[in-house]
Amino acid sequence: MQRLVSYNYNGQRQWGVLASDGVSIYSAEDLEETYFIPLGETMEEFIESGEEGLLNLARALEMNEKDKSIEPLSLKDVRLEVPFYPRRNILCVGKNYQAHVKEFDQNANAKNPAVPIFFTKATTSVIGPEEEIDSHPAATKEVDYEGELGVIIGKRCTNVAAEDAMKYVYGYTIINDVTARDLQRKHVQWFKGKSLDTFCPMGPTVMVGDWPVPFTIYTKVNGHLRQEGSTNDLIFSIPRLIEVLSDGMTLLPGDVIATGTPQGVGMGQNPPQFLKKGDVVEITIDPIGTLKNTVK
Amino acid sequence: MQRLVSYNYNGQRQWGVLASDGVSIYSAEDLEETYFIPLGETMEEFIESGEEGLLNLARALEMNEKDKSIEPLSLKDVRLEVPFYPRRNILCVGKNYQAHVKEFDQNANAKNPAVPIFFTKATTSVIGPEEEIDSHPAATKEVDYEGELGVIIGKRCTNVAAEDAMKYVYGYTIINDVTARDLQRKHVQWFKGKSLDTFCPMGPTVMVGDWPVPFTIYTKVNGHLRQEGSTNDLIFSIPRLIEVLSDGMTLLPGDVIATGTPQGVGMGQNPPQFLKKGDVVEITIDPIGTLKNTVK
Repeated sequence: MQRLVSYNYNGQRQWGVLASDGVSIYSAEDLEETYFIPLGETMEEFIESGEEGLLNLARALEMNEKDKSIEPLSLKDVRLEVPFYPRRNILCVGKNYQAHVKEFDQNANAKNPAVPIFFTKATTSVIGPEEEIDSHPAATKEVDYEGELGVIIGKRCTNVAAEDAMKYVYGYTIINDVTARDLQRKHVQWFKGKSLDTFCPMGPTVMVGDWPVPFTIYTKVNGHLRQEGSTNDLIFSIPRLIEVLSDGMTLLPGDVIATGTPQGVGMGQNPPQFLKKGDVVEITIDPIGTLKNTVK
Repeated sequence: MQRLVSYNYNGQRQWGVLASDGVSIYSAEDLEETYFIPLGETMEEFIESGEEGLLNLARALEMNEKDKSIEPLSLKDVRLEVPFYPRRNILCVGKNYQAHVKEFDQNANAKNPAVPIFFTKATTSVIGPEEEIDSHPAATKEVDYEGELGVIIGKRCTNVAAEDAMKYVYGYTIINDVTARDLQRKHVQWFKGKSLDTFCPMGPTVMVGDWPVPFTIYTKVNGHLRQEGSTNDLIFSIPRLIEVLSDGMTLLPGDVIATGTPQGVGMGQNPPQFLKKGDVVEITIDPIGTLKNTVK
């Protein structure tokens, strides 16, 4: 398991990998220049290079493990940014945890969807782990959070069977599928209520390599736990989502699938608790990290 | 008014502008090299260059009008391609013509939507005017056409008032918003049923500059007229669509808004007539041209 990050250091966007201490970074540029192993200038490029890139990275880290030539940067000295900028809209799944279906439909007997519900978020909604969520008071009165596991596609694929699907998963990140509930309802199709600028915090890392599933998703607002969900409880599993989504539809390296949110969003509180200026939303999925954003 | 095209000539993708005869092309490369006026290597780049690019093009064409140095290519000698590849999902509007609302809801008293319904189509669904629509028999039994005017955004913009909106319109194209009706229904949110590979024919040209509105949209299937609609009958006008869409959400140069389809889609026929292998769909909007695609 490795955790990739992009960050701003001395005014420059760079990328690298977290050291095993979790609080320092080896820059990809340092690794590349020290060991003459090509890694790519950006994480976008690195993801495009697929398994070859991952093997190169493992090789460079192994060499550094031995000779310790590279001085890691402290996380404290950088500003973490969006790990990579998805080229096209974020692919999202609605109502994919049973308890959330009931809270969303405000009906204890609500049925699970028969097939996954897919919608998208605009690329312009993506922000990094140290940016602020705009509450857009002129456009909406009901800004809500949704903590979600994001699955990153690594290889171009179409018509993937569920049993082969994990071959196309590059890694994982955290997505806050921020939603204007009033716009979501009013516009019928969810795109607009999901796509306001800053409504897609993503990061803080991209986790690649093996990790024992399931993942547990915790969302806190101002320190209070609101969501705790296990990906074991997904109605449509990650392989099944990839199977259905890729049926007749090509997926590309760098596509992100936000897999749905567990119970406990703001609209499900009694009374509903929407986000307001100054609120802090923290979504933790180990070992990806904690995606923390303040509302402005 | 000028009509921009991208085309394959001798195995190379190039772009250019239709001559006034409508059957020949001045290549941008020829114009650039003959008059030393920068135009950009691709239409994507040219659109990014905005008004400056358009002024340069007008200047080059004017010079050629005088000295006739450039030999135009015949349309017959090229294969027209997608004019440009949108970087992110196509923005689409549902139920934006009153007569189509009634046919879609299968209810003569169906009400117009209170606000525009926005959804998106995946970039991987985009094909050019000489490519085939895949009927995806394994994924759907109900492939339908939707002839639409596509509006291309020219400048980055957010929170645009309707009265300023036309400043951000770069030009127009034709979109066939091909839809798998069974998937559209089943998945509740429309993205999946709208996004199968080949489900977004686009072209044949990008029209820039002044043209008297309204546009009339004609759709024929196998030579039979199925749709005839005027953009005067849009429930939400182009300026209003831009106003609502850009409210809190940034639009980018090269974004395409498919403005909705008039009455007469296949699901509205009695009995419904879905597309099948060998069918030919032709959508004509003057002076953009005719977008003609065969179903395979």
